[in-house]
Amino acid sequence: MSFLDTLPTPCLVLDLPTLKRNIARMASAIARHPGVTLRPHMKTAKNVQVAALAAPGGGAITVSTLAEARTFATHGFRDQIYAVGIVPAKFAAVAALNLQGAQVKVITDDLDVARAIAAFPGPLPTLIEVDVGEGRAGVAPDDPLLLEIAAALGPRFAGLMSHSGHSYAGRSIAAMADLAEQERVTLLDAAARLRAAGIAVNILSAGASPTALYAKNLDGITEMRAGVYMMGDLLQAQLATHPLADIAVTVLASVIGRYPARGAVLIDAGALALSKDRSTEAAPRDWRFGRVLDREGNPTLGDAMVTRVHQEHGEVRAAEGVTLPLDRLPVGARVRVAPNHVCLTAAAHDRYHVVENGALVAVWPRINYW
Amino acid sequence: MSFLDTLPTPCLVLDLPTLKRNIARMASAIARHPGVTLRPHMKTAKNVQVAALAAPGGGAITVSTLAEARTFATHGFRDQIYAVGIVPAKFAAVAALNLQGAQVKVITDDLDVARAIAAFPGPLPTLIEVDVGEGRAGVAPDDPLLLEIAAALGPRFAGLMSHSGHSYAGRSIAAMADLAEQERVTLLDAAARLRAAGIAVNILSAGASPTALYAKNLDGITEMRAGVYMMGDLLQAQLATHPLADIAVTVLASVIGRYPARGAVLIDAGALALSKDRSTEAAPRDWRFGRVLDREGNPTLGDAMVTRVHQEHGEVRAAEGVTLPLDRLPVGARVRVAPNHVCLTAAAHDRYHVVENGALVAVWPRINYW
Repeated sequence: MSFLDTLPTPCLVLDLPTLKRNIARMASAIARHPGVTLRPHMKTAKNVQVAALAAPGGGAITVSTLAEARTFATHGFRDQIYAVGIVPAKFAAVAALNLQGAQVKVITDDLDVARAIAAFPGPLPTLIEVDVGEGRAGVAPDDPLLLEIAAALGPRFAGLMSHSGHSYAGRSIAAMADLAEQERVTLLDAAARLRAAGIAVNILSAGASPTALYAKNLDGITEMRAGVYMMGDLLQAQLATHPLADIAVTVLASVIGRYPARGAVLIDAGALALSKDRSTEAAPRDWRFGRVLDREGNPTLGDAMVTRVHQEHGEVRAAEGVTLPLDRLPVGARVRVAPNHVCLTAAAHDRYHVVENGALVAVWPRINYW
Repeated sequence: MSFLDTLPTPCLVLDLPTLKRNIARMASAIARHPGVTLRPHMKTAKNVQVAALAAPGGGAITVSTLAEARTFATHGFRDQIYAVGIVPAKFAAVAALNLQGAQVKVITDDLDVARAIAAFPGPLPTLIEVDVGEGRAGVAPDDPLLLEIAAALGPRFAGLMSHSGHSYAGRSIAAMADLAEQERVTLLDAAARLRAAGIAVNILSAGASPTALYAKNLDGITEMRAGVYMMGDLLQAQLATHPLADIAVTVLASVIGRYPARGAVLIDAGALALSKDRSTEAAPRDWRFGRVLDREGNPTLGDAMVTRVHQEHGEVRAAEGVTLPLDRLPVGARVRVAPNHVCLTAAAHDRYHVVENGALVAVWPRINYW
């Protein structure tokens, strides 16, 4: 009997060779740009063992929560960017890590916060976030605020960062390369304004997985941040950032009910185990709440997908015009669900069951919550 | 300074008087029906202290995961229904609890599973799930399978259960009462067929929060299951199951960026802290990813809502035609987000910060994962 039949379901399965392949692909993409380093974003994996592969030797990383910052610092990943706008109530937690030997950099786009950082007694190196077109956070590169914030930060100003999150709307390698170039030019323009005012800009941190993979020219950028590339998902596979076979994380689930009259089965992976993310809704192929693969992770189930979710129930049907092979799906049978958006699906679970060549080789915990 | 300014954000806040009011309302709704007991569903709260209020004295409860079953059994809640279709791989875990003194009942609608239950050496009392119109799981009441499954279960057959999940699509008290009556009649019809075949049907378990609250007649039903009523959310408030003021759970968040040019702020509660549930999408009032209230939980912010989420970012804007009071929302300011669907939002967090009369009175852990 395979361990795939005995793991408690629902649970996360992480294919180690796929993870390593994804990490190697990004590493060589970045290696094409001399002087540019990769600062992997650990918000997707949230795991120390994955960080050791993506940022070998305690390399520079990006984090999205204080919980990640603390755990990764404890495990030797000292050079971090905490890439969510900082608030004064979180200063002390970051400064405490820095007083213990970490170099956690925070980010802001707010003048009042910059002044509070300058006045704070503990070490808080700070990047200013620049909006390069995503329209989420950041100062516009031509906004006078940019110079005011840098001046307010004084010696705590450590550089500029941007997030090209809008690159996930790209649908071709050329579109992603264009967005990467737009981000580069915008960030360099902001840096030029600061440098003209006599302010040194040491870090120029850009990125998102699509732009990190497909940028043609990163001259002037010092580092790229990217995270989802390690794991992959059904949206990424349609952005051409990786093939379908390079989705490293799936949810193992059990069939809990079989309904021949409507050509459906229920599985024990529902809204909690998969998330309600519908990232593929606007993609060329909409996989509803996830694509359903067989126990081994192969697409042999008639393009099956999770069509509906309740808290602990997922309804599985085949794609239109295809029949679900119900004879292979008795109650108790195991299937794997490839996620729409791996960051959200992985976050529903507390551990990875790590698989290599058909064997369970490790269980790795995730750093969930805040 | 209020504890609401010092709790780490994002985090869950549970208003204890509101919780108690919601629990009391359901208890009196059920008390109108002699012979019917309430078996609270703990899948929303997933917490022992809440169970002690909803099912006092270690009363009967419903659970949705083995993790819940184990923890509640350990804390004296012995009479449980594990209300997700059982699979053979989970038999041993349930039987182990029952051998330690619990009475955890499982559910199925599958003949092969029923046979496996009958052949299993440990104690597995089983309810057959009947489809009363939801179209998710369950045997149709007139399907010959019903008698076959009951016969296969033999002495392990403990009764019938159904879920009127489609009652959440109801928009009036009359509609919910009608669905409750339809569920009652369907379940009694199924029981009559079994009884005519000489099979005793001791438990007739029905429910969902809307039908439990508004059923007019529950004659013949032995118990009602309901869970979300304890906590409340923006969808429930529009189903007339409770007023807006009876949402007991909110997410406390901090403003992390302010963007006057687009009349928006960012908060540190995004897709992970709120979930991507969009239950209000089809409701009369669509609150996108949640309604934004002030620090005290009052709706004084111009009908603000979370319009967009990224993993750790939520974008807050006012309703159309209304202006967000940006002067009251500097970076660091605290707000509360009322959830679209509390089951999903609460599941993103590992604990409740319990508040009573403006004071933090306890921190209660949740039983997350499986």
